[in-house]
Amino acid sequence: MAAGTRELKVELGERSYPIYIGSGLIEQAGEIFNRHGLPVKSPILLVTDSSVVDLYAEKVEAALASAGYSVTTAVVPSGEASKCLEVLDELVGAALEAGLDRKSTVIALGGGVVGDLAGFVAASYMRGVRFVQIPTTIQAHDSSVGGKVAVNHRLAKNIIGAFHQPEFVLYDLDTILSLPMREVRAGLSELVKQGLLWDGDFVHWCDEHAERLLALDPDALGYALYEGCNIKAIVVSKDERENDLRAILNLGHTIGHALEAVAGYGELLHGEAIAIGMVGAARLAVKFGYEERIAQETERLHLKFGLPVRIPSHLDTDEIMSAMMHDKKFSEGKMVFVVPTAIGSVEIRNDVPSSWVREIVDGLREGN
Amino acid sequence: MAAGTRELKVELGERSYPIYIGSGLIEQAGEIFNRHGLPVKSPILLVTDSSVVDLYAEKVEAALASAGYSVTTAVVPSGEASKCLEVLDELVGAALEAGLDRKSTVIALGGGVVGDLAGFVAASYMRGVRFVQIPTTIQAHDSSVGGKVAVNHRLAKNIIGAFHQPEFVLYDLDTILSLPMREVRAGLSELVKQGLLWDGDFVHWCDEHAERLLALDPDALGYALYEGCNIKAIVVSKDERENDLRAILNLGHTIGHALEAVAGYGELLHGEAIAIGMVGAARLAVKFGYEERIAQETERLHLKFGLPVRIPSHLDTDEIMSAMMHDKKFSEGKMVFVVPTAIGSVEIRNDVPSSWVREIVDGLREGN
Repeated sequence: MAAGTRELKVELGERSYPIYIGSGLIEQAGEIFNRHGLPVKSPILLVTDSSVVDLYAEKVEAALASAGYSVTTAVVPSGEASKCLEVLDELVGAALEAGLDRKSTVIALGGGVVGDLAGFVAASYMRGVRFVQIPTTIQAHDSSVGGKVAVNHRLAKNIIGAFHQPEFVLYDLDTILSLPMREVRAGLSELVKQGLLWDGDFVHWCDEHAERLLALDPDALGYALYEGCNIKAIVVSKDERENDLRAILNLGHTIGHALEAVAGYGELLHGEAIAIGMVGAARLAVKFGYEERIAQETERLHLKFGLPVRIPSHLDTDEIMSAMMHDKKFSEGKMVFVVPTAIGSVEIRNDVPSSWVREIVDGLREGN
Repeated sequence: MAAGTRELKVELGERSYPIYIGSGLIEQAGEIFNRHGLPVKSPILLVTDSSVVDLYAEKVEAALASAGYSVTTAVVPSGEASKCLEVLDELVGAALEAGLDRKSTVIALGGGVVGDLAGFVAASYMRGVRFVQIPTTIQAHDSSVGGKVAVNHRLAKNIIGAFHQPEFVLYDLDTILSLPMREVRAGLSELVKQGLLWDGDFVHWCDEHAERLLALDPDALGYALYEGCNIKAIVVSKDERENDLRAILNLGHTIGHALEAVAGYGELLHGEAIAIGMVGAARLAVKFGYEERIAQETERLHLKFGLPVRIPSHLDTDEIMSAMMHDKKFSEGKMVFVVPTAIGSVEIRNDVPSSWVREIVDGLREGN
């Protein structure tokens, strides 16, 4: 492994796996596949999307071919719409035509959408084959820990899926360099989120190193991805199947998902929507009697990373409230929120009055 | 539980579950759901098919309603064609509209098709909810043990699926009484198969009690279902994810699946196709030097149950051979077969010359 590569173990008993974070990892993919004992005789399906294929697919294919693997690449359209059963059906067809057997591997090369989709192919093809993730965005650090894979249904996001852990994750920092700046900022939002819910020191570090992170300095970025993945890995290893603790990872997501749904997927990036959602959750904390500083710091930090902290003015409050009611994170009619109690810790409240939420949504409008 | 009810435990560690076999179990469904701790507050989705719905759905709904459960029934067209992603999509929509949450249960009321389909809904909805099976055919005893659930792809059967164990199985013998005689015979074929691959004494018992079984005598049928499920449970508990031993359950299936595919699903019932396949496998055993008696007994037994033992004359040998080549049960180009070594034991051979198979297929034609 090249010097400077970080290795993080996600502890899940017999489903434990490593995440490798460093530069030049794609070039070493063949060697790493061999080392992990992935069989050379069983064909591999490489799933990627239309915006990533021209950048990295050939590199991955060449690295694997040089180690003796036979790889078939399947390209799906870029964007959330590919996370559906129709595309799953096409990918299973591609896997069959490529001759994938029970010992085969499905690789996800791309961001969170490709990871979720290819992961569900791996989880369900022949009732489960091996899975490897090669994330190409900062945002995807989140979906590369924890094994949640899924496709969407017309009526709900991520509703058809599985828990399917990868063999390993190859996080090649070189792929991040080609990301548009807006996606860099949105991805950093989710990294900061991991700190806000678990580790105040990491939030402080992000604050101090914001400029280096935004400049995609490999060492700063490698460290931040390592820490972000590590926090998520700690939470997931305590609660793999989201019975309780794992729900804290949804900090900012209740309002965030509603904003994405009402704006129509695409207008707001996921990281942007949850940035606004985190500011909302922090204001809810103040309502519950926690320090005002939590809300002020959350907002200042997101502004420092160039992230939105206000709801676009054309989005309707009633529609946002209604979208939240359809979210999975409600039980028995009460509103459930992940609420910060300090910078670096949260609690799950299932007693949040919807009138408070409405007030906060109104207060977060642009111009306020 | 009513007198005469048999209870079988499928041993799978923390995923262990009981199979209840007896008369009048549907009437007790509510009580049994309560006893197993299935939450009353979470809505239930009852999946059934167009040929079963009018016979038993109201009974199940009434039994559950009387115990406080809210049940929504979804009806799919009867037949193999319903095992597809389009119908999965519809059922997930029905589950969402009925408000199913993570603590909800999906019930399969019907034969193997409904079990496989509803089981995959339960495995994938919100990444997995509870699953209960209420089989209404003899054939379904097979799919009610072992947790294999799946839908078909245009290019291959059962290729998209999961391992998802039920909470329990309710085998109400009253439902068997309404089965057409041809399906009774086909179902008994799979019961006899469990004996042929594992337990010569059970084969002998089936032979001696064939008339009572064909007359659907509840005590004989209850015993045979218990034994058939028990054999499968023993095999599955030793190899839940089909790494090796579990493959012996495919006795008769290599030729059988090919016959189903070439005849077009529907002409031959699954049990009929594997009856012919078992005779073929027994003839292969003789080729490998095992006793001729194995082939003679296998054929005599199937004839006693009124099952076909010859390939319909209009099916083409080349097509049958080609269909076998597409079957999952081939590795690296060699033909793999489950071959009997005696009445009640089998071995897996991966060295079967395709010329032998062709010879046997030819020899099994009607008129030979």
